[in-house]
Amino acid sequence: MRKPHILHAGLLQTKYGDDIEIAIANSAAQGVQLLVLPELHDHHYFCQVKDPDNFKLATTIPGPVTEHYSHLAKQHAIVLVCSLFEKVNENKYHNTAVVFDTDGSMAGQYRKMHIPEGPNYYEKFYFTNGDLGFNPIQTSIGKIGVLVCWDQWFPEAARLMTLAGAEILVYPTAIGWEPTDTDDEKQRQLDAWTIIQRAHAIANNLPVISCNRHGHEKDTSGNTAGIDFWGNSFICGPQGEILAVTDDSVSTFIHAEIDLNRTNDVREVWPYLPDRRIDSYDDLNQCFADDK
Amino acid sequence: MRKPHILHAGLLQTKYGDDIEIAIANSAAQGVQLLVLPELHDHHYFCQVKDPDNFKLATTIPGPVTEHYSHLAKQHAIVLVCSLFEKVNENKYHNTAVVFDTDGSMAGQYRKMHIPEGPNYYEKFYFTNGDLGFNPIQTSIGKIGVLVCWDQWFPEAARLMTLAGAEILVYPTAIGWEPTDTDDEKQRQLDAWTIIQRAHAIANNLPVISCNRHGHEKDTSGNTAGIDFWGNSFICGPQGEILAVTDDSVSTFIHAEIDLNRTNDVREVWPYLPDRRIDSYDDLNQCFADDK
Repeated sequence: MRKPHILHAGLLQTKYGDDIEIAIANSAAQGVQLLVLPELHDHHYFCQVKDPDNFKLATTIPGPVTEHYSHLAKQHAIVLVCSLFEKVNENKYHNTAVVFDTDGSMAGQYRKMHIPEGPNYYEKFYFTNGDLGFNPIQTSIGKIGVLVCWDQWFPEAARLMTLAGAEILVYPTAIGWEPTDTDDEKQRQLDAWTIIQRAHAIANNLPVISCNRHGHEKDTSGNTAGIDFWGNSFICGPQGEILAVTDDSVSTFIHAEIDLNRTNDVREVWPYLPDRRIDSYDDLNQCFADDK
Repeated sequence: MRKPHILHAGLLQTKYGDDIEIAIANSAAQGVQLLVLPELHDHHYFCQVKDPDNFKLATTIPGPVTEHYSHLAKQHAIVLVCSLFEKVNENKYHNTAVVFDTDGSMAGQYRKMHIPEGPNYYEKFYFTNGDLGFNPIQTSIGKIGVLVCWDQWFPEAARLMTLAGAEILVYPTAIGWEPTDTDDEKQRQLDAWTIIQRAHAIANNLPVISCNRHGHEKDTSGNTAGIDFWGNSFICGPQGEILAVTDDSVSTFIHAEIDLNRTNDVREVWPYLPDRRIDSYDDLNQCFADDK
């Protein structure tokens, strides 16, 4: 057993309209070193509709929005994980996480690699597939493997971040229920979401922070009953064990002392990563074959 | 929503010494179409020690052991998933699952691809890495993606079986606690084991059957306190939802009516498999880089 290497990490579960600047200040006052915000925290979840006007919400990186968050990271001396609607140019927009270091510098970006498209989540209308790959972002507190929302359903993403040296996995996310679904279906969806992210922790022996929004947001097209973002943000350790969790219906800050050295302790007890059959994984680069 | 396509499936959670032939007969009498046995069910878990004498336990395929199980599968008209210690020749032994169809024919084999090696689980001493790849086995009741024990920690294995057309994932397994571990550690390990396999169901939208042994088995070397195989076998559906589960300490048969058509229903609600970034997964064929 190694001597503990504690990272004090937290997340801000917010609903649209919360004053995020005040919430960041209050969270930082708790002594947190790393703070994670939900996906696209500066806006309503505009992807519920396909509206060309929404492209106006996008920001350049760097730009006034990153200056704002850079300033907050520096002011509070925290590593801050933001989720922005990035405008690269008139033809290229991304769903981009930006990590600011404690000195306000931009430590790195991650452009969401897996983009969903379906009722209430028309993200392919807005976002180009990420083009920066699965590369963890080096900060003063460690290498952060930032992934975003839909990425959470892909074990490949968590694994690639791990192989590239991530010390923690972080998921800003915006996911919720269709209000018309049955309670049983809602529970299955929430459980599936929690379980698969805890499984990324387990499969890779890394802590995971998953930060969701909460609250109801209307579908302004009127085509659906909107989304009840389900909150339930959590922090777990490298065996998938829950360290902190919220309930579904509050704006809240939760935090935990994560021992980054437990990763290698766990890897020595159940050392499965060295047994990966990299001679036999070629077909992971394939879709379903046509006859499957 | 498709019309249900029900598969009545079960598993036999056994401890070493149980009369498996009688247990199979009793299970088949419940009308099950598919029956799964635990890993290496015909023997004590001999991999706790490195003893050359144990190679005598191995059997050829086909051979008298497969004839025995072929006969039982035909007699009870079930698809039967067995787990055998296979002798290919004097230099090649495998941990091999064999699937028998309802007519007693051998539908196919899977040789365990990921082989563990560590205290109480010296499998690399006995088993060569599997060399048949991740190929589901076609039976009269569907394509079965059989994986074995240690494979369960590798999302790659479940994904490859899925991409190759598996309709259900099946894990014969033999995993347990070190008796000297704390209760907290035992709970974390059991939870991790359950969660990661439920996550394979979720990530791939496939039902999962995981069949473990239970009961204490001594480490005959005297070097450790042996293994308390933890049972807790379960069957879950394509959202990871538990359909049947045992507790840790009994020889038992559990079963469930699995609707194989729910897989495609679920895939239409959250269609993430088409969004896999197969242009960006090359590094899954890599180990950790030297500087990670």
